[in-house]
Amino acid sequence: MGSDGTDNLSLDSIRKTLIGLEDTIIYSLIERSKLPLNSPAYKSSPFPGFHGSLMQLLVKGTEAVQAQFGRYQSPEEVPFFPDNLPPPIVHPSQNCSQKLPAAAASVNVSKDIWDFYVNKLLPQLATEGDDGNYVLSVASDLVCLQALSRRIHYGKYVAEVKFINETEAYTTAIRAQDKDTIMNLLTDTKVEAMVKQRVAKKAMVFGAEVTLSDSNGSNTNNYKVEPSVVSRLYDEWVIPLTKVVEVDYLLKRLE
Amino acid sequence: MGSDGTDNLSLDSIRKTLIGLEDTIIYSLIERSKLPLNSPAYKSSPFPGFHGSLMQLLVKGTEAVQAQFGRYQSPEEVPFFPDNLPPPIVHPSQNCSQKLPAAAASVNVSKDIWDFYVNKLLPQLATEGDDGNYVLSVASDLVCLQALSRRIHYGKYVAEVKFINETEAYTTAIRAQDKDTIMNLLTDTKVEAMVKQRVAKKAMVFGAEVTLSDSNGSNTNNYKVEPSVVSRLYDEWVIPLTKVVEVDYLLKRLE
Repeated sequence: MGSDGTDNLSLDSIRKTLIGLEDTIIYSLIERSKLPLNSPAYKSSPFPGFHGSLMQLLVKGTEAVQAQFGRYQSPEEVPFFPDNLPPPIVHPSQNCSQKLPAAAASVNVSKDIWDFYVNKLLPQLATEGDDGNYVLSVASDLVCLQALSRRIHYGKYVAEVKFINETEAYTTAIRAQDKDTIMNLLTDTKVEAMVKQRVAKKAMVFGAEVTLSDSNGSNTNNYKVEPSVVSRLYDEWVIPLTKVVEVDYLLKRLE
Repeated sequence: MGSDGTDNLSLDSIRKTLIGLEDTIIYSLIERSKLPLNSPAYKSSPFPGFHGSLMQLLVKGTEAVQAQFGRYQSPEEVPFFPDNLPPPIVHPSQNCSQKLPAAAASVNVSKDIWDFYVNKLLPQLATEGDDGNYVLSVASDLVCLQALSRRIHYGKYVAEVKFINETEAYTTAIRAQDKDTIMNLLTDTKVEAMVKQRVAKKAMVFGAEVTLSDSNGSNTNNYKVEPSVVSRLYDEWVIPLTKVVEVDYLLKRLE
């Protein structure tokens, strides 16, 4: 690894990762959509010695386990409950994640991700209902949340590569702490439009009912998750929040 | 729920669940296949105060969290590490899972699932390599293991419905503890062949590289997980182990 810690970082390799995470996100949404909403799991329901909703408790508990194994040592992995996490007994080796300048550590939009997931996305994914099996739904939520968080916080790498490719323009804007110019510099509306189209198409392919009887591989009118829900998710949340991550990171890039 | 606890249990509704779990399993295998093998995570590597491989430790820790939220209160949910699980603070409500006769509780092929997953399936899924990011791979393994275990232990419901539909024939065979006859009674080779074909087709559809450029929705020659690996998985492990679960359950059905 070079002295700037970013050898092997290229926009191409990062885009490949982001495209792979599109699949991860869509699979996870499809899985959650199989289960009913199970709304009591999201309401504060204290048990002796516990505070918070079932979902909060399960996410917190699982993050504590994964923290021990080094999950939150990578800049793209941000816990939803960072307080009182146990220290890692295992550290990911150097090559598992690219190092980023110190600025990366404090960039965090987990609260926004949690809020849009629980309040906006989940009601569109899951049908009204309560089958009482809350642990399956919140375990499934965690998979969705982790995939979305990883995708969005990957914006740190995107920003770093853009900074390296256009250091001069970014440096001027960062010195002036000029958010608008930074936002303009990093926005590529053509790529964004393509991403939104592609995730809708993936929702159609991955969410098709596959039966042996149709020769085409899939029925085309019955998707497990509405393709428009996925493309709106990207339009309204994933892309904007990734850009918030990028801007936040860049504003601190020269500190 | 009726006095036999099996109202609403029908072979049709069970088959629907099993077909849904095919998707879950295939998505999870595709996700794991994106990561390198990371073999040190599967070797015994004790840390102070811990014993076992990283994978064992992470699965054990996550199961302890999920047990608190009632995961292992359903007959189809069997922990890989049942010893010393904390008691549930939440119990799934009655309607989340069909009740089964007491026989169900002791039927358990988790050890076989673990062994074939780690030793046979994983090396076919993941490419040789070590990126040092063990927690992501073992978290991904856990999703695969839970999906496979749920699918296989769902055999308890399959067996119960078959028993209800052909009580007389099964009762004679169970009284004689005649495994071969029970196995013959519950085997439907036509359905098995269909399942193997369908999962291969699903691996093609869900594992296709989806790009915007091809009009067809998917490139057809580059699958994320080899369809033949998935159909062999069903042929050699999922179907046979489900049948072991069914036979074990039935042998104890009249106790």
